[in-house]
Amino acid sequence: MSKNYDLVIIGGGPAGVTAGIYAARQNLKTLVITKNFGGQIAKKAVGIENYPGFKKIQGMELVERFEKHLKQFEIDIVKSSVGNVEKKDNLFIISDNKKNCFKSRAVIVATGADPRPLEVSGEKEYIGKGVSYCSVCDGPLFKDKVVAVIGAGNAGVESALFLSNFAKKIYILEFLKESPADKVLQEEVGRNNKIELIFRADIKKIKGGKFVESILLRDKESGKEKSLQVDGVFVEIGSQPATSFVKNLVDFSEKDEIRIDPQTCQTKTPGLFAAGDVSNVYYKQIVIAAGQGAISALSAYKYLNKK
Amino acid sequence: MSKNYDLVIIGGGPAGVTAGIYAARQNLKTLVITKNFGGQIAKKAVGIENYPGFKKIQGMELVERFEKHLKQFEIDIVKSSVGNVEKKDNLFIISDNKKNCFKSRAVIVATGADPRPLEVSGEKEYIGKGVSYCSVCDGPLFKDKVVAVIGAGNAGVESALFLSNFAKKIYILEFLKESPADKVLQEEVGRNNKIELIFRADIKKIKGGKFVESILLRDKESGKEKSLQVDGVFVEIGSQPATSFVKNLVDFSEKDEIRIDPQTCQTKTPGLFAAGDVSNVYYKQIVIAAGQGAISALSAYKYLNKK
Repeated sequence: MSKNYDLVIIGGGPAGVTAGIYAARQNLKTLVITKNFGGQIAKKAVGIENYPGFKKIQGMELVERFEKHLKQFEIDIVKSSVGNVEKKDNLFIISDNKKNCFKSRAVIVATGADPRPLEVSGEKEYIGKGVSYCSVCDGPLFKDKVVAVIGAGNAGVESALFLSNFAKKIYILEFLKESPADKVLQEEVGRNNKIELIFRADIKKIKGGKFVESILLRDKESGKEKSLQVDGVFVEIGSQPATSFVKNLVDFSEKDEIRIDPQTCQTKTPGLFAAGDVSNVYYKQIVIAAGQGAISALSAYKYLNKK
Repeated sequence: MSKNYDLVIIGGGPAGVTAGIYAARQNLKTLVITKNFGGQIAKKAVGIENYPGFKKIQGMELVERFEKHLKQFEIDIVKSSVGNVEKKDNLFIISDNKKNCFKSRAVIVATGADPRPLEVSGEKEYIGKGVSYCSVCDGPLFKDKVVAVIGAGNAGVESALFLSNFAKKIYILEFLKESPADKVLQEEVGRNNKIELIFRADIKKIKGGKFVESILLRDKESGKEKSLQVDGVFVEIGSQPATSFVKNLVDFSEKDEIRIDPQTCQTKTPGLFAAGDVSNVYYKQIVIAAGQGAISALSAYKYLNKK
């Protein structure tokens, strides 16, 4: 199977869907390739309260609304994963894991990023029941509760500081001997008497009943195990953008994000754009990713019209 | 009246509302100063089909949803216009036209943009007597009349489509050789037999008695002048950002937009941010402005925490 498009959008999260809506409205012959819709929203178990227009909406409901919105336009959708993207003679050749091959004059990569999991027992089971990968999204739910943040890097420390607006006690649990976070952030943590740092902590298990109740850790110096009573666990050990299939066409940030011009979402390869969490945008949020989706599609349209 | 805030947000359109939602969720003591909510959405003539999550929604309905979303948080709102912003000893002093004075550690400017005038003879005299910048406000007054829309961009074409619900004939007069509007909108115009497009039209004068009676234009190819009998003129040639109150604190683009770092929405003055159509973001769209609102609030939070 081989088919020619003006634009192929890879990914069906907020950035990919918004890019699709904008591309369709520009009458671009567009294909969206995605395993599923919603990206990280689909995995959110708690209500979303920061997508403007919806005071509170469940992740799956917002995903359905995005998907329906996209599908009202004439647009092709293929449910698969992209394995490789090449550029030859001003055409992109996109191959997926179902042995499809598509040709397109422009491409938007919007494959998002997955939070890096801790990979300990109990983690998966308690997602949405105390285990979270997004303090900005879920922090307000932990008013007057005790929580643990895993990771004392910038993201972890920032999470802890943010959570101190709500929670009564925050443990930061770090595998290393010291925090790799910015000094200013560390100082701020030092001044915050709700936050306690525990180093050399090797997380063994997340435990609970219906919701998280405790976390089991092992001191890497003494080898002793210890259980902390917590209501929530925020995992902040980084994320992994899904980008390997374009590695020859783009530059990466230190975090393996695709480097873009934030005004246009253009990568270093003309005609190849990236939008949302897969890019080096500073903040990873639904409405920011959606905004970038719109930018990338309008830039792609401009690029195609200039040619 | 004088009160101290962490953050003052000036403007209540998509950027200002989203900034407010994010600021409130960061527990910042926040004030929103705005004449009204919705910004340019409130004036939109046709249903909005490109804000992800809503297949089609009327402007006023989206405005109400934004306003309700913001108001569910603990946030102060003052309905007025800002006259001046100064920075003294790391504090911003914001004065409005109701003689209020507020102090704040950070400020986000999200005042959007006002319609750009045509600047031809007769335009000012006939404002409210046939000349309008808001088809949704004034369109219904032109039932069975003949009107001209100046500008064939998205705004002009959307206006013409809306006006076709009332007027018996609509001319779209465009300076360029072709319409820069979205293809879907152009097609819709093509199917609407009330609408006639005239390209290369250089508007010379708006004429009339008590009310508008005609518009004089010059064909830019042939140089010939031509008079069209019209009862109304809708000017849709873009907008000019409302920024005079911060002119000493920011740099401007050629279009008088506030220059920002698009990754952070930071202006040249530390602690002063700009988001949405008032900024030099390339594309002016609701979802892009909302995304920038989120970016500006998260950046303001970071700025306040570092101090």
